Amino acid sequence: MGEGIGIVGSGIAGLHLGLFLRGHDVPVTIYTDRTADQVAGGRLPNTVGHHHHTLERERALGVHHWDANEYGYVCHHHYVGGEQPLRFRGDFAHPSSVIDYRLYLPRLMEDFESRGGEIVIEQVAAEDVDRLSQRHDLMVVASGRGSLQSMFARRPEQSPYDRPQRRLSAGIYAGVAYSEPKGVNIHFSPGHGELLELPIFSHQGFGTALLFENVPGGDLEVLADTRFEDDPAAFNRLVLEKLRAHYPMVVERLDESEFGLWGERDILQGALTPTVREDYVRLDGGGYAIAVGDVHTVVDPMMGQGANSASYSAWTLGEAIVSDHVYDERFCRRAAREREGLVLGVSDWTNLMLNPPPHVLEFIGAMSQDKALCDEFTSNFNDPEKQVDVLCTPERTRAYLARWAAGLTPAA
Amino acid sequence: MGEGIGIVGSGIAGLHLGLFLRGHDVPVTIYTDRTADQVAGGRLPNTVGHHHHTLERERALGVHHWDANEYGYVCHHHYVGGEQPLRFRGDFAHPSSVIDYRLYLPRLMEDFESRGGEIVIEQVAAEDVDRLSQRHDLMVVASGRGSLQSMFARRPEQSPYDRPQRRLSAGIYAGVAYSEPKGVNIHFSPGHGELLELPIFSHQGFGTALLFENVPGGDLEVLADTRFEDDPAAFNRLVLEKLRAHYPMVVERLDESEFGLWGERDILQGALTPTVREDYVRLDGGGYAIAVGDVHTVVDPMMGQGANSASYSAWTLGEAIVSDHVYDERFCRRAAREREGLVLGVSDWTNLMLNPPPHVLEFIGAMSQDKALCDEFTSNFNDPEKQVDVLCTPERTRAYLARWAAGLTPAA
Repeated sequence: MGEGIGIVGSGIAGLHLGLFLRGHDVPVTIYTDRTADQVAGGRLPNTVGHHHHTLERERALGVHHWDANEYGYVCHHHYVGGEQPLRFRGDFAHPSSVIDYRLYLPRLMEDFESRGGEIVIEQVAAEDVDRLSQRHDLMVVASGRGSLQSMFARRPEQSPYDRPQRRLSAGIYAGVAYSEPKGVNIHFSPGHGELLELPIFSHQGFGTALLFENVPGGDLEVLADTRFEDDPAAFNRLVLEKLRAHYPMVVERLDESEFGLWGERDILQGALTPTVREDYVRLDGGGYAIAVGDVHTVVDPMMGQGANSASYSAWTLGEAIVSDHVYDERFCRRAAREREGLVLGVSDWTNLMLNPPPHVLEFIGAMSQDKALCDEFTSNFNDPEKQVDVLCTPERTRAYLARWAAGLTPAA
Repeated sequence: MGEGIGIVGSGIAGLHLGLFLRGHDVPVTIYTDRTADQVAGGRLPNTVGHHHHTLERERALGVHHWDANEYGYVCHHHYVGGEQPLRFRGDFAHPSSVIDYRLYLPRLMEDFESRGGEIVIEQVAAEDVDRLSQRHDLMVVASGRGSLQSMFARRPEQSPYDRPQRRLSAGIYAGVAYSEPKGVNIHFSPGHGELLELPIFSHQGFGTALLFENVPGGDLEVLADTRFEDDPAAFNRLVLEKLRAHYPMVVERLDESEFGLWGERDILQGALTPTVREDYVRLDGGGYAIAVGDVHTVVDPMMGQGANSASYSAWTLGEAIVSDHVYDERFCRRAAREREGLVLGVSDWTNLMLNPPPHVLEFIGAMSQDKALCDEFTSNFNDPEKQVDVLCTPERTRAYLARWAAGLTPAA
């Protein structure tokens, strides 16, 4: 046996797991290629919401440093464009929040070290994991960088797409007032994409993150390809022009004299292919490496689920680790089973929403006319398995809406 | 949709599920081939212990009619014969109990009907289930009688045996005083089998069930083949002779003038092949049937786990039913996943104990010298997954004993 658990990666999965294990006095080493200062000073890594179940884990870990009642938001405002524009709101039972990971991760790295966790700054490739496993009882791969994701085979039956379904542009902007009540605004431009407008807390205080989810080949794809650095003013004009054309309900709250990206570090553009990978692999040296977070499941950011899934997965893995004493294949199989419901729920639900079939569009139509139904759907951002239960087949959606119309409480 | 849930079988699985669902106002019909009176007046069906986790479910269902503090038992006494006989005891954290199912099942059938459950007396074969499924939202097969088990394919990777590992003779006897404290006594006769001596409450009050687990081809196999009815006195003499030869520590508490089987209804002889079957099947009519209890997993009675596994499986299935609204393959997969840990734990552990490898014998040796370790093992009759965690490989057993010796609390 070695020195406890080795974790490759210092994102939310690696840190939540590391903090959980330190809370149980398990020795933990996190291997990461960047220092806390480098993360803090780097490029915007994402614009991800933490929902209530994740915030509850933060509270249990003692790392909920940004009180969701002050920094968070309480609802989703939905805006559907077209000839008959729709606006409808869904309220959460408990607030969610968006904290820039350039603040969040360095702070948790500090927490982790102050609780006796070790951080080693080292670039780890797939071929290094076997070597590191000689020093640890179990290796956890919590980063999909470089060659690491090649360690875990793609699961085709869980991975319906072989290419990105959206091309992304996420940035933090000045000059957009928040909606009332403070919420995430979800705008739809059928055929071209979606815009998520998020109240983010970042290095300059509160700002507005605009996450453009652009359909490849659509009118908005240019937002993923145009570089801010080349001509900041032209970039801002382009964004404003596209907002006017596709998302006019943002423009209502926009101060043109103030509007613009915060700065060149505050934008992330790219694309990803939603993929579910195997849970674990046996290493040549006889140990096991288990995948957690993005290296296990990559989901499109549209439903704001990735970090929540990674945190959940880290927590259940932590529970599995402290309740066992040998980290063999039996351990890995159980750890995989325990997270499977939520993690595949996130993946299946998000994949469904990227190309919504008619019954899902009908469900959205029903929500637009029934705030209680929309509240239920909104709170179920904390229960992605339930979203799949409701939406995965026309029969399920129809039966759910019939129960709802009959006044039956949604199934517990 | 039809009238709620249809359950085939009125054993513990069918009844615990039916009672759970009636507690949630779900319409339930149980199809069974025998009336409560027929069960009460029938042959001894088994001699099964209910452990604490099952008793807790009984309490939650409001059917714990035999207070375990009065009717139950609190420990396992172990007796290993041979040149250096060993006696050692393991205490439960909470009592278990053995109530004759000829009392137990009829009383729960009455509870079920008094709470609005419907019982239909009808012999149901495999080909009937599809027809019945037209009347129900979901069919649950909770009986392995006749053709029903052929509905669910054997899972070879979970079923290491293709024939019975013991030939069984279970009967209720007079003339055997209980051990102090009241417990189940587990006797080993290496190479020939095991004897479980159980304090059962039955139609004449308290008695002693002797469950002979006889190795095929061994000296005790004759106990499974000799018919009591043919010559009761000769049968009793044979049992006494075998007890003297193999299980002398029973004879110490035996009053020969009183000793003998209660009666010809109070014995069950036979053999079973431990088998794990598929969780569910799609019916021709489009509905699903899900297996629960013996029709899903048959385990040898040696570790006293079958009823507990069936009750757990029924409870988790009940929870899955009331938390969903369509009973399709997605539902069945989830229900299967939720019970898999305990149900396969029971099966894997029992299969291991039927032919214990050297590291398991070493663990038993360690228990004989360490009462706290034996207490832990005994209480873990409530956590069969943990028993597998400790015993399934030499490495796991060695690591567990090393942790134990180092004074580390067993993993939570």
